[in-house]
Amino acid sequence: MRALTVLPGVPNSARLDDVSEPSTADGDVLVETLAIGICGTDREIAAGEYGRAPAGQERLIIGHESLGRILDAPRGAQLQPGDLVAGIVRRPDPVPCPACAQGEWDMCRNGLYTERGIKERNGYAAERFRIEPEFTVKIDPKLGDCGVLLEPTSIVAKAWDQIERIGARSHAWWPRNVLITGAGPIGLLAGLLAQQHGCELHILDRAEAGPKPELARKLGATYHRGKVDGVEPDLVIECTGATSVILDVVERVASDGLVCLAGLSSGGHELKFDVGKLNRRMVLENTVVFGTVNANRAHYEAAAAALARADQGWLRQLITRRVPLARWSEALERRPDDIKVVLDFAV
Amino acid sequence: MRALTVLPGVPNSARLDDVSEPSTADGDVLVETLAIGICGTDREIAAGEYGRAPAGQERLIIGHESLGRILDAPRGAQLQPGDLVAGIVRRPDPVPCPACAQGEWDMCRNGLYTERGIKERNGYAAERFRIEPEFTVKIDPKLGDCGVLLEPTSIVAKAWDQIERIGARSHAWWPRNVLITGAGPIGLLAGLLAQQHGCELHILDRAEAGPKPELARKLGATYHRGKVDGVEPDLVIECTGATSVILDVVERVASDGLVCLAGLSSGGHELKFDVGKLNRRMVLENTVVFGTVNANRAHYEAAAAALARADQGWLRQLITRRVPLARWSEALERRPDDIKVVLDFAV
Repeated sequence: MRALTVLPGVPNSARLDDVSEPSTADGDVLVETLAIGICGTDREIAAGEYGRAPAGQERLIIGHESLGRILDAPRGAQLQPGDLVAGIVRRPDPVPCPACAQGEWDMCRNGLYTERGIKERNGYAAERFRIEPEFTVKIDPKLGDCGVLLEPTSIVAKAWDQIERIGARSHAWWPRNVLITGAGPIGLLAGLLAQQHGCELHILDRAEAGPKPELARKLGATYHRGKVDGVEPDLVIECTGATSVILDVVERVASDGLVCLAGLSSGGHELKFDVGKLNRRMVLENTVVFGTVNANRAHYEAAAAALARADQGWLRQLITRRVPLARWSEALERRPDDIKVVLDFAV
Repeated sequence: MRALTVLPGVPNSARLDDVSEPSTADGDVLVETLAIGICGTDREIAAGEYGRAPAGQERLIIGHESLGRILDAPRGAQLQPGDLVAGIVRRPDPVPCPACAQGEWDMCRNGLYTERGIKERNGYAAERFRIEPEFTVKIDPKLGDCGVLLEPTSIVAKAWDQIERIGARSHAWWPRNVLITGAGPIGLLAGLLAQQHGCELHILDRAEAGPKPELARKLGATYHRGKVDGVEPDLVIECTGATSVILDVVERVASDGLVCLAGLSSGGHELKFDVGKLNRRMVLENTVVFGTVNANRAHYEAAAAALARADQGWLRQLITRRVPLARWSEALERRPDDIKVVLDFAV
């Protein structure tokens, strides 16, 4: 069968390979792949900057944002042939850390987790994959190929879970208004969850026109181009990873405010900044800044429910390019107005 | 009666004034002042950099770390003449914000609070003061003049309350090891609470010898001079406000770790650093960095209990200078080996 693989650490080594059928060692559920979403991590892996092959193998099958249809599942797993599903990305180490032992592998404390398509486990970008029932998440069939948005939505569901838990440090705190920086897939899906939580919504991006401002406005958000004026948000969900944006929002957030860092920066650039002034403000205003990564099963399930509740027309507009597997290299390119780019396995 | 006052905003305007007896408008409890602790905020106020007089008054009576003995209290207030007490510092606005309305004035969201000895309310550095029963906290008589440590201990009790609430975002998270940066009064009192919570304790300071390393070791802490090696703490309580220390600990903290910012920086100095690298680490490791300020009644009560439980000999060593009121200006000076300096009203 065909699979998209890379030689980790080697730039531009991605290719469409002919690989053997998936091993039952990966799990008892056999899935026919329908679509694989492409994100910044995949582009970093393809650039040789990230990713690790499974032990004893040279190449890594990439792909961690999955959508597939079950071909075969063990009895008693509450999974049926024909079900639309996605696979959870992270797996705890066989000797789990205290967080992983409680199913919180998104909070893994010793870094010994593996990740399908990223770290020491083959991913889902193959015509078929196998998976354990407990790492398989069902998707409402009405979502169709928007089910491929489950993994990125699980990331923002994890972020919201942390926001609610951390926000509970102060009685009666609730984010009346939310600023989301960056109208990429993570920013817009975070906006969807903010809208579903009933918050007043502001979205910042650089785009002047095109799908990003339009999708932001369709969520009921005020769209801010390039800079934000006159907003003191209770909560910021930072999805750009841009250093100047990060510093600006930590200064801007309201008293008792939360800044949730969900965007990965590349690093490597130094900036001159008054750290003392920022520290003073954070102390006097009880500010919290926190990073969030990955998602556990509860977050995937919350994400599946959020996607099922969403306006399906709006969701479909998030997928701005569908690239047939044979033309996979186009999916790894960044193009203006891209939101979510998907590798289509069904054509 | 004598009181230590300043003209807010005017450097070196502090003087010992003859003022009228405290007004019943301040509260029904009349207290004879025994001691007033001096901290960085008092020095900032004396330098004209901070502080605001009550409406309609020119001068501000300073002093917010109080210890006194009740002279008179209303019936039913569970306060008796002779009780050792301290006064809570912050008061909510008469129209409270949602946090203040729940007694969480330390989390005040609109900044309309007042603070005795700091912001728009006279402080406790007078021979007698009056206070409302609900802002009066009883102190175990065995503490003696160490009762003056209640207010700084309330600050670290608030910090620990936030640590526990925020830490609860991950199941089974608990700080096995704690790094405290700065062995001033806040750092050492934070160390006391860490010790009482059963954590492995590390304390960093610049002091080569003298009371700071000694008091750290008496708490059972590993004392680190100038830099920390080989420690990956689950929790950092940052009490220096020094920018290089702040950046170092955010990079150093363990996965799922918390950095509690409790030290006020002065600001005004720019530093070159890689914000993107720090952001990337915070995202991938689920790091939380949060500021904490002030304390509410529950924190004062937790602090009173912690002080009563502490080794009283160790506590007494925290007070390194006791300055008679008549020589008040010496109390505002910083001297090497100072930990807590106290204005003594009893002599």
